[in-house]
Amino acid sequence: MVGQVGTFEHQGHVIALSGGVGGAKLSLGLSQILAPGQLSIVVNTGDDFEHLGLPISPDVDTTLYTLGNVQNPETGWGRENESWACLETLEELGGDTWFRLGDRDIATHLLRLSLLKEGKSLSEATASLAKALGIGHAILPMSDDPVRTFVTTPDGDLPFQEYFVKLQCAPEARSFRFEGIGTARPSAGFQSGLDDPSLSGVVICPSNPFVSVDPILDLPGIRQKLKQDHVKVIAVSPIVGGQALKGPAAKMMAELNIPASPSSVADHYRNILSGFVIDSVDADQAGIIESTHNIPVLVCNTVMKDLESKTALAKDTLQFLSTL
Amino acid sequence: MVGQVGTFEHQGHVIALSGGVGGAKLSLGLSQILAPGQLSIVVNTGDDFEHLGLPISPDVDTTLYTLGNVQNPETGWGRENESWACLETLEELGGDTWFRLGDRDIATHLLRLSLLKEGKSLSEATASLAKALGIGHAILPMSDDPVRTFVTTPDGDLPFQEYFVKLQCAPEARSFRFEGIGTARPSAGFQSGLDDPSLSGVVICPSNPFVSVDPILDLPGIRQKLKQDHVKVIAVSPIVGGQALKGPAAKMMAELNIPASPSSVADHYRNILSGFVIDSVDADQAGIIESTHNIPVLVCNTVMKDLESKTALAKDTLQFLSTL
Repeated sequence: MVGQVGTFEHQGHVIALSGGVGGAKLSLGLSQILAPGQLSIVVNTGDDFEHLGLPISPDVDTTLYTLGNVQNPETGWGRENESWACLETLEELGGDTWFRLGDRDIATHLLRLSLLKEGKSLSEATASLAKALGIGHAILPMSDDPVRTFVTTPDGDLPFQEYFVKLQCAPEARSFRFEGIGTARPSAGFQSGLDDPSLSGVVICPSNPFVSVDPILDLPGIRQKLKQDHVKVIAVSPIVGGQALKGPAAKMMAELNIPASPSSVADHYRNILSGFVIDSVDADQAGIIESTHNIPVLVCNTVMKDLESKTALAKDTLQFLSTL
Repeated sequence: MVGQVGTFEHQGHVIALSGGVGGAKLSLGLSQILAPGQLSIVVNTGDDFEHLGLPISPDVDTTLYTLGNVQNPETGWGRENESWACLETLEELGGDTWFRLGDRDIATHLLRLSLLKEGKSLSEATASLAKALGIGHAILPMSDDPVRTFVTTPDGDLPFQEYFVKLQCAPEARSFRFEGIGTARPSAGFQSGLDDPSLSGVVICPSNPFVSVDPILDLPGIRQKLKQDHVKVIAVSPIVGGQALKGPAAKMMAELNIPASPSSVADHYRNILSGFVIDSVDADQAGIIESTHNIPVLVCNTVMKDLESKTALAKDTLQFLSTL
């Protein structure tokens, strides 16, 4: 299969491993230049939890809303033109309101709830929602089995959303564990993407390495598969100029006594990378990464502020992949 | 226990058997003149169903919203000042929208869903919601076990909400069945109200006899209990001047070849009534009902258009009860 935009052309199937905002942005870019059958966006579900009886899949929804072009551009989560009557009423009734579910967002959650109650898998429910949002490209939960991320802090383990949303990432992160990871199977769509003979490569999006990408990589069999010589894996650094563009990655690195740098990200993904993409502001690190890991490094603009820059990074990344 | 409003005073505990709008109106009236511990409002749950994965209890919610003074006065269901962003979005996503759940109403349903998921009973969930709405009087689902009303029509059996909401009561009703009724137990609150030595009487509210009150009466043990001599039962006719003030009761009577009259309602409740309340416009039927059933009949205004008339009917009904 060949994807073509203007003069751009890419052969084969691409798997994107993605978390929240940064991953969804690059996924949107990839969706602009790859045909629907050419792209599998595999999304972290370690952030998933149940809240108010609703099954919440934050990273899946960020991806759905971003590719469906209904995302809230200011928050990075939820839908545009959102209203809050349900949450206001919930507050009046003394319900939990720390996790912000807008009225329109709740429609997604009710559909997911009813699909799961009908016996559909999370993959099937996600496919239905994607179709309803007019999305042609495959958005695949990393697994249909529950995996739940906990952040180990000095005061004990916190469920991820409590750490991330309720406590605004304030506690010190000492380590992370993914409950259920030992028995969770990669979703059928993820697995068949990996087994696809036309797989041209795996792109690790600029998502949080510890809590967005590691749950995907830690699924049984995934690291082994990605280490195989014929599987090309490239990662785009989520750290730019010593900062994470969004989210707690840099704060986590500081707490883990790791420098917040692209080089640390490359170290984190050691043994699975065939190539690495860093931002122009970090160009000085290209040499050390290349020599340490014996992989080529692409230096380009990785900051995706509009559709043009998302598409440009997708294009740069895939062209780089083709050279490996 | 003694309830007192102005010069009104009532001794003992009262159980109201109630369905939707009419029942909730009289229940509100009763709550104005009885102390919280004196009144148990037992609500039909035969209308309950699951929709979009949410547990829906229409009659319980009508009662909650009416006593909590947040009801929508125009529709007879749902909350005042409602908005519809979730339902609009659900429609865009191709979801089911025939059952109208407003954004504020959804908050109630999410709380109920989460309480049930925590292992709470419908009674406990209802008590939590009542407390959240500032309601002091007990609102009790008739049962915590599922009972589901089906309307038998020439084209087969319809789940109640499909008949009532989706098809707007258009199909001809030939009979009714209450799935699960054989094994459903009266809720603990309902049962303890019936067993309360201070029980002064049971008021059957002006609700639909076939689909609102019969599910309550058909619960195992209830009719037998109400037939006991020491249990005084009075019903307020939901039929006034040949019409139901709300809902399909008169239409159902026509389809069942029963005259739509208070007399037919008294016939329907034969053997359990100690007294019957009819509207002044039907005064001419008092004699025939008294002689047929050998019970006294109170003739008064039963049309409840404001809080004053609700309270007045409650007062008339309880004073009548005291004379039996």
